[in-house]
Amino acid sequence: MAWETLIQSVEQVVGAAGLVRDPELMHSYLTDWRNAYQGRAALVVRPATTEEVAAVVRLCHDAGVALVPQGGNTGLCGGSIPDSSGRQVVLSLTRMKRIREIDLANETITVEAGVILRQLQEAASQAGRLFPLSLGAEGSCTVGGNLATNAGGTAVLRYGNMRELTLGLEVVLPDGRVWHGLRGLRKDNTGYDLKHLFIGSEGTLGIITAAVLKLFPATHSTATAWVALPTPQAAVDLIGHVRSLCADRLTGFEMMSRQSLEFVLDHVAGCSDPLQGPHPWYALIELRDTVPDAPLDLLLESGLGHAFETGWVIDAVIASNQTQAAALWALREGISEAQNHEGPSLKHDISVPVSQIPAFIERTDSALQQAFPGVRIVSYGHMGDGNLHYNISKPLGHADAPFKAQEQAIMQVIYQMTSAFNGSISAEHGLGQAKPDAAAHFKDPLEIELMRAIKRTLDPTGLMNPGKVFATGLE
Amino acid sequence: MAWETLIQSVEQVVGAAGLVRDPELMHSYLTDWRNAYQGRAALVVRPATTEEVAAVVRLCHDAGVALVPQGGNTGLCGGSIPDSSGRQVVLSLTRMKRIREIDLANETITVEAGVILRQLQEAASQAGRLFPLSLGAEGSCTVGGNLATNAGGTAVLRYGNMRELTLGLEVVLPDGRVWHGLRGLRKDNTGYDLKHLFIGSEGTLGIITAAVLKLFPATHSTATAWVALPTPQAAVDLIGHVRSLCADRLTGFEMMSRQSLEFVLDHVAGCSDPLQGPHPWYALIELRDTVPDAPLDLLLESGLGHAFETGWVIDAVIASNQTQAAALWALREGISEAQNHEGPSLKHDISVPVSQIPAFIERTDSALQQAFPGVRIVSYGHMGDGNLHYNISKPLGHADAPFKAQEQAIMQVIYQMTSAFNGSISAEHGLGQAKPDAAAHFKDPLEIELMRAIKRTLDPTGLMNPGKVFATGLE
Repeated sequence: MAWETLIQSVEQVVGAAGLVRDPELMHSYLTDWRNAYQGRAALVVRPATTEEVAAVVRLCHDAGVALVPQGGNTGLCGGSIPDSSGRQVVLSLTRMKRIREIDLANETITVEAGVILRQLQEAASQAGRLFPLSLGAEGSCTVGGNLATNAGGTAVLRYGNMRELTLGLEVVLPDGRVWHGLRGLRKDNTGYDLKHLFIGSEGTLGIITAAVLKLFPATHSTATAWVALPTPQAAVDLIGHVRSLCADRLTGFEMMSRQSLEFVLDHVAGCSDPLQGPHPWYALIELRDTVPDAPLDLLLESGLGHAFETGWVIDAVIASNQTQAAALWALREGISEAQNHEGPSLKHDISVPVSQIPAFIERTDSALQQAFPGVRIVSYGHMGDGNLHYNISKPLGHADAPFKAQEQAIMQVIYQMTSAFNGSISAEHGLGQAKPDAAAHFKDPLEIELMRAIKRTLDPTGLMNPGKVFATGLE
Repeated sequence: MAWETLIQSVEQVVGAAGLVRDPELMHSYLTDWRNAYQGRAALVVRPATTEEVAAVVRLCHDAGVALVPQGGNTGLCGGSIPDSSGRQVVLSLTRMKRIREIDLANETITVEAGVILRQLQEAASQAGRLFPLSLGAEGSCTVGGNLATNAGGTAVLRYGNMRELTLGLEVVLPDGRVWHGLRGLRKDNTGYDLKHLFIGSEGTLGIITAAVLKLFPATHSTATAWVALPTPQAAVDLIGHVRSLCADRLTGFEMMSRQSLEFVLDHVAGCSDPLQGPHPWYALIELRDTVPDAPLDLLLESGLGHAFETGWVIDAVIASNQTQAAALWALREGISEAQNHEGPSLKHDISVPVSQIPAFIERTDSALQQAFPGVRIVSYGHMGDGNLHYNISKPLGHADAPFKAQEQAIMQVIYQMTSAFNGSISAEHGLGQAKPDAAAHFKDPLEIELMRAIKRTLDPTGLMNPGKVFATGLE
């Protein structure tokens, strides 16, 4: 099929408004927000309905043309960026942004893939409910992207990943048929649970066009503490203690190293150290409750009181109002940006069992300092999920280029250690085009084989987001 | 391969203790606890380790012999019972009952498939934690069966189904290879999440031999209320109100009709009506908290106070101690047994969106009374999950046989209505051999096709629990 014929057919489906061919307008669809990945595309299609998505997928399928589904383009692994051939079609879901239904009695919301996460949060809030997924890119990432990558963030500790927040899906399959799995059921045991195949599959098995998501009661009380810790082991002990006491009131437990905080203090305007004197580790703890005026400060004080006695906590401050709480969160949220001021950040998104965090940090820090003396290790993350953003900056005073040249070698050390602790080399960012080779290396070959078998079964022509998730030649 | 050769090879793997061939001893493996399904088998194998399971599966695979994995045999749909050919092999996991590891800091427990659910609950409790899955058969059902059927029960409202309680799996594949997916990670985004394929697949894709499961903080405060409601709609309104106020303190919300309660009062010794005068509907509400001496009674009273004003609640009693609370739960738990005293119980395990429960009950009651005048409808269930056990007893004074003859026709009415409300015909019991035909009829044919494709991919020889999940000819 000639390209012009395909393009004409696609235009008949989506109209002129649904087609982007102007190179200047196409640009933002061909690179991610960090400009870390660039690709080319034959065209960008922006269907407005599920039926249009299905028709476009069918046309591309029949023409043998590969599709790259795309949401807000905020991913960190290039999963939504086409390759450099210029022969792929980007299918952007950003025009599918209807909130189809809010069913308060069922505690569910049905949304299309192109809805921005923040709009979803706001729609829930206006309905007196909470949609808990929360992450840095929430102002521009889409629900479809959140589903495709099984997004995580700071509230997973309490509410789970995107996967756990999903009850039903509507999916356009690789041949253009539509699976109508938009069920709002808490219990359904009538065979294989297909939605879990598509969630986290990064567009390689089909295109998610809508989802039924869970809503939660809005919270009306908050307590936030910033605590100094002697060691990561103290953080493990502390979170266990706080969770036993508070259970699901514990909605956040972020850990960060002194190095992480120092970068923030040096580079983010308006930030100051909440405690006197440097301490090796910090944790940001948040409790929430649906009951108004719940005595969460008292609960937090009682938990921390015990932790002072046992030596898990060296110093602590509890925010006395929302402004102070926001200032504490700003310290945590500023790390990623602050690190950019110190040269290239080699980012890693690993997870290990929570109990293994201290040993992982100790052994990996030591291995890195031995192999790459002076590197600055910026480790922080979602302690309750065992998820560390274990990022590396160059040694003080060194140049960027030789440090960048060590990127692969540094990554190998970190991933090797992650693997030794039975961990994951991508906790919440997915594989995209950045990590398929590493995944193929570190995962059980049998698991890769099962994944490939499923890929071939659902996408026999291999036209759904090729080059993502699977290492070259392994699709 | 001759049978005797296969049996000798199997015996070399599992030893004499792992083989059951005596017809008398085999009997309990060939029928379920209700004696609703009976089958025959060439032999029963009871491997003691994952390696033995793998070796037995490989031998059967190579010999072309079909396997029926079996746990505690407490299922309600015959999923663990072999067919009548006498050519299938029952593979019982009941000797694999080790608790392999408790990792308190990771809040996980690793157990083998043959562990009895109650033993798992007790092991968690002894470690100061909660394993929340709770259901009628917990004294004899196994973790492997809970996983194979994605078991539900009374705590799903708060803690989720077995699927949501699982972090990792060890699975023997249909060809005897072992997938070592026993990871204790809260976040892992390195490709397709294979564990969700095996959970709920009822042994048709492989044999789960072990799992990493989540633990939760133990609770130290409880409040329990029994309330009378005018309508199912009042129950929907009430649960929404209680959940908004109490969030995850709400651990139970069971609804039941007056008919359900009357059967219990008539047939279960020691039960009495907690309230004066008959009321059309009842709910049993339970709150729990990790904090000792939490003022849950006050919270419950405040919630119910509002519900009295709005008319959602007619009358209510709050248990003043554990004995009273247990007496209230006994009313709910006695329904299934009580109904057996009234002749055959036609049991249905359906779910619809919570918001649709009132309309579902009204329309289905009405359709049944029109088509089968006088039938007694015993509807009760897990309100917060939209899961009704919508069971039917014969009209008063009628004989069993003509009523039993209407079983299929009654089921058709109920399933048709469930389907019209976008619900599920098996909320928590699975399909087994009882419901594959109904599932094939009421599910989207495309979904059945996708399930079949996955079955063929993972079990190309079709030897894993044939005749279950899929209707005949659809495997």
